[in-house]
Amino acid sequence: MNTQYTIGLDYGTNSVRTLIVNAAHGREVGTAVWDYEHGEQGVVLSRDPNLARQHPADYVQGAEVSIKKALADARRNVRGFKSEQVVGIGVDTTGSTPLPVDLTGRPLALDKRFAKNPAAMAWLWKDHTGVAEAAEITELARKIRPHYLAKCGGTYSSEWFFSKILHCLRAAPEVFDAAYSWVECADWIPAMLTGTEAPEKLTVGVCAAGHKAMYNDDWGGYPDAEFLSRLHPKLGELRARLRERALSINSAAGGLTRAWAERTGLQPGIPVAVGAFDAHLGAVGAGITPGTLVKIIGTSTCDMMVVPLPKPAEQVSGSGKASADKGAAEHSEARVLADIPGLCGIVNGSILPGYHGLEAGQSAVGDIFNWFVNCLQPGGKKLGSHEELTARAAKLQPGESGLLALDWNNGNRTILVDQRLTGLLLGQTLHTTPAEIYRALIEATAFGALTIINRFEEYDVKVEQIVNCGGIAEKNPLVMQIYADVTGRPMMISRSAQTCALGAAIAGAVVAGAFPNCESAQRVMTGLKRQVFKPDPEAHAVYRELSGLYKGLHDAFGTKDWSGNLYDVMKELLEIRNHARS
Amino acid sequence: MNTQYTIGLDYGTNSVRTLIVNAAHGREVGTAVWDYEHGEQGVVLSRDPNLARQHPADYVQGAEVSIKKALADARRNVRGFKSEQVVGIGVDTTGSTPLPVDLTGRPLALDKRFAKNPAAMAWLWKDHTGVAEAAEITELARKIRPHYLAKCGGTYSSEWFFSKILHCLRAAPEVFDAAYSWVECADWIPAMLTGTEAPEKLTVGVCAAGHKAMYNDDWGGYPDAEFLSRLHPKLGELRARLRERALSINSAAGGLTRAWAERTGLQPGIPVAVGAFDAHLGAVGAGITPGTLVKIIGTSTCDMMVVPLPKPAEQVSGSGKASADKGAAEHSEARVLADIPGLCGIVNGSILPGYHGLEAGQSAVGDIFNWFVNCLQPGGKKLGSHEELTARAAKLQPGESGLLALDWNNGNRTILVDQRLTGLLLGQTLHTTPAEIYRALIEATAFGALTIINRFEEYDVKVEQIVNCGGIAEKNPLVMQIYADVTGRPMMISRSAQTCALGAAIAGAVVAGAFPNCESAQRVMTGLKRQVFKPDPEAHAVYRELSGLYKGLHDAFGTKDWSGNLYDVMKELLEIRNHARS
Repeated sequence: MNTQYTIGLDYGTNSVRTLIVNAAHGREVGTAVWDYEHGEQGVVLSRDPNLARQHPADYVQGAEVSIKKALADARRNVRGFKSEQVVGIGVDTTGSTPLPVDLTGRPLALDKRFAKNPAAMAWLWKDHTGVAEAAEITELARKIRPHYLAKCGGTYSSEWFFSKILHCLRAAPEVFDAAYSWVECADWIPAMLTGTEAPEKLTVGVCAAGHKAMYNDDWGGYPDAEFLSRLHPKLGELRARLRERALSINSAAGGLTRAWAERTGLQPGIPVAVGAFDAHLGAVGAGITPGTLVKIIGTSTCDMMVVPLPKPAEQVSGSGKASADKGAAEHSEARVLADIPGLCGIVNGSILPGYHGLEAGQSAVGDIFNWFVNCLQPGGKKLGSHEELTARAAKLQPGESGLLALDWNNGNRTILVDQRLTGLLLGQTLHTTPAEIYRALIEATAFGALTIINRFEEYDVKVEQIVNCGGIAEKNPLVMQIYADVTGRPMMISRSAQTCALGAAIAGAVVAGAFPNCESAQRVMTGLKRQVFKPDPEAHAVYRELSGLYKGLHDAFGTKDWSGNLYDVMKELLEIRNHARS
Repeated sequence: MNTQYTIGLDYGTNSVRTLIVNAAHGREVGTAVWDYEHGEQGVVLSRDPNLARQHPADYVQGAEVSIKKALADARRNVRGFKSEQVVGIGVDTTGSTPLPVDLTGRPLALDKRFAKNPAAMAWLWKDHTGVAEAAEITELARKIRPHYLAKCGGTYSSEWFFSKILHCLRAAPEVFDAAYSWVECADWIPAMLTGTEAPEKLTVGVCAAGHKAMYNDDWGGYPDAEFLSRLHPKLGELRARLRERALSINSAAGGLTRAWAERTGLQPGIPVAVGAFDAHLGAVGAGITPGTLVKIIGTSTCDMMVVPLPKPAEQVSGSGKASADKGAAEHSEARVLADIPGLCGIVNGSILPGYHGLEAGQSAVGDIFNWFVNCLQPGGKKLGSHEELTARAAKLQPGESGLLALDWNNGNRTILVDQRLTGLLLGQTLHTTPAEIYRALIEATAFGALTIINRFEEYDVKVEQIVNCGGIAEKNPLVMQIYADVTGRPMMISRSAQTCALGAAIAGAVVAGAFPNCESAQRVMTGLKRQVFKPDPEAHAVYRELSGLYKGLHDAFGTKDWSGNLYDVMKELLEIRNHARS
């Protein structure tokens, strides 16, 4: 039998990656990365620190260049490899990254008139210009549509679809008026490749729609026009120009156009899967299954879980053109899931068809370490590298520094869903060193991770194992060991270093018919590394004390209901420190 | 008339300075600094980070070398200067820095048997080995002698006389048993110069005794033997070997011995004033007077004020051998002063004879900036100097960083009197720069300074003007401007850069009879610089908001009684930041 390959197209914040995977066992045979050319490292910025955009021209060029280079790479790596052996494509992107499009589905920024207007570009996930609009949406929903909020953690974020569109309507009305509709990047890329950009042909993924745009089949898809009209009449009018139905990754958005086949050397007509966010397909690529928490640790984290839907008949999403998914229905834990406050979202079929997809996350993890090293530049150039700080931090005992930090330098996504939180470092003396602070920042992100695990379990989503992926999980064993020691749980690492692209390639394999469903593709194409970071009982005991202090600060600064006194916090840290040093 | 000069001998943490001053107008004509030779920069350390000692051999050699060098300097600077024109000597030292002495008053560390035993050396002010003993003393006093605590802020510190002696008794009993008595460095130096070291001849200063050893004429001097015995019977026995009466700086400890005259080239018999702490004589050298807060800003601060005693007849200290002090009695605000919680001490005659001496302070100021620059080393070597950070911090608007810090890296002296507090930095994002943190640390010390001013005024000690001295006041106009803007009060700078040594020289001039009292000597010998840092109303308005947030953190982490919620702190900082940037 002829070997089949699939492509995962992974659109990140600064670059796009193409990964070519052997569908028979998941081996990655070719890859290429193309850096976006617009803005700073692909991000268009302005004086407003909240603004972050991407130029869709980078999306177009990035697909062509990275696919061609990855195919060349595969030809170098695999004797006899032919691009005709690529049978399907999957796509993951950042999100919520919506872009305004015209009547033909063409992004406005590709029109000369708007080419340099940031409002006409893609509004990158980390754009926070819509803070006021997010608060407005949250407030209105709380009043008249509380069920909208229940599925997205109780607060609608400034990072999400409608906050951005409403902000555009207010801040750049000429762009809003010129746009026929708005499309998530995750939907626009498959549409571009399959010639289905036109709004009447467009396929929308349930991942983006469900997690960021309050889409839910229970209430007929996107928020109703009356609700949107209350925010702005023009937003209400937009409702009719959004798609009615959203699908999972086991559906195809269409077949590759002849034009794109020619540009890339792939076969025309091969199916392109419905797009999803990087984290969600990363979870697929890490082998997510009920009971497994997948942590994708990069500049921020996404913490993903799945819970089987109660009955196949009730599967309203992801039951489209593709194969049936029996795995979920057969799982003994299938049930209706309670809303979980503080989670970014619970969306049916957003990760795997047939399962609730649960998304949580920390707004900054690697970004905090990078801030410390690159922005604060402690310890001079020699001692201040990640490597040197890690080496020195690794020599410290838990609690020895006397420090405690909050991991909120970029706000708090889960469980507080509050962008208006900031960092905190406590316990510094006249002798506190850069390595001690570096370790305290790592520990802070570990306490943040623990807070998410606890939230899942408080709502009966049992975390049986934890699989980590992403650059930090790959490269920094100290971080993984601290996570194990803080949580008291073993930390496993995904076999692939490119789980998002691998997850996309799995979607490509499923829509190509290489597997009957996602679970069977996962079983073949994903795996774990041998090394497992096991918790050290003594370290865990110290961290249990520190976790309690972290929770005190977390609740004191992060919740309205907390009332108390922090008189003992510094004193207890000193006692823990003295004990650790003795 | 033959010009008269006096000498101020200023024993610091790392070195001793001799300053020669023209008594006619305060001009400084010669100076010399000698660095201690023992330990690290004069401080003997150990693995225990709380331990800090000085070797008394440095005191002896330091006096000889620095006096000789200063005389040579004066001869270079003033044509016809003769050492015979030096008519008196004053002495200031760090404190509480007690040293164990034998029956003859000789420090044990000068005995070969104990020369290398840190317990036999001088227990430097910043030695904190007696933390447990301080708590014990505080607890016992709270139970059976609450009035002892009322004069020293409600808590007996680990930095003070009896905490150190009791700790020696426990930790190094062989040293305690070998010691006949314990003498403050401020008392031992004048005794050394005048040959009055023997316990029956020793003159004790009210400054050290009153502020650090619970000495008060109201209860018959030092704490009673019963109280001390309850701590340890041997401490009770020590009571009989302490002096009965303590004097102010307008009294002479004696005349310079022939031996010291020969060693230095000074005239034998010239009077040496009773010693006092550097901060107290610094306040004298800065021209302290009722209504004037003198801030001595160095690694830490001392914040000094004087309030006239009610009636000359009630003057129990400082009315010894020297001239009468009419100034205080004539002052209209003369009154009995209420105890002020959190002040390091209220001691009659400890600064100026005839006045209550009030001492407050911050445990770290320059030390915090030095920690940031030297220990954290932010911004690489080039951008991380005090100068560069100051230059960049000066360009920031108040509130612009969104940061708020507590100045507790070395605990909090006034008003919380709590060593077991630590630093806190709040509000950092992914973009926070070293200069922003540097400014936040300066601001934190300014809020700490304001807290002290407020405490004085809450207890009816009106702060009419503020005179700053010390290295930071001299060299960093940004710090002074921020202090003005935060407090809303003009900041003045003492004319002399060596106010402690100048204050000592003033004491030397008074005991030599060059002036009838300290006030008249101050009027002639001290002054202010022309430059005054005036508060900017707009900056002050922003800092009033930030002060409120600082107070919230201060009370939340520093006081037992506080109960509340900090949910708004980060959000308000962001609002202030956004407003400052708009």
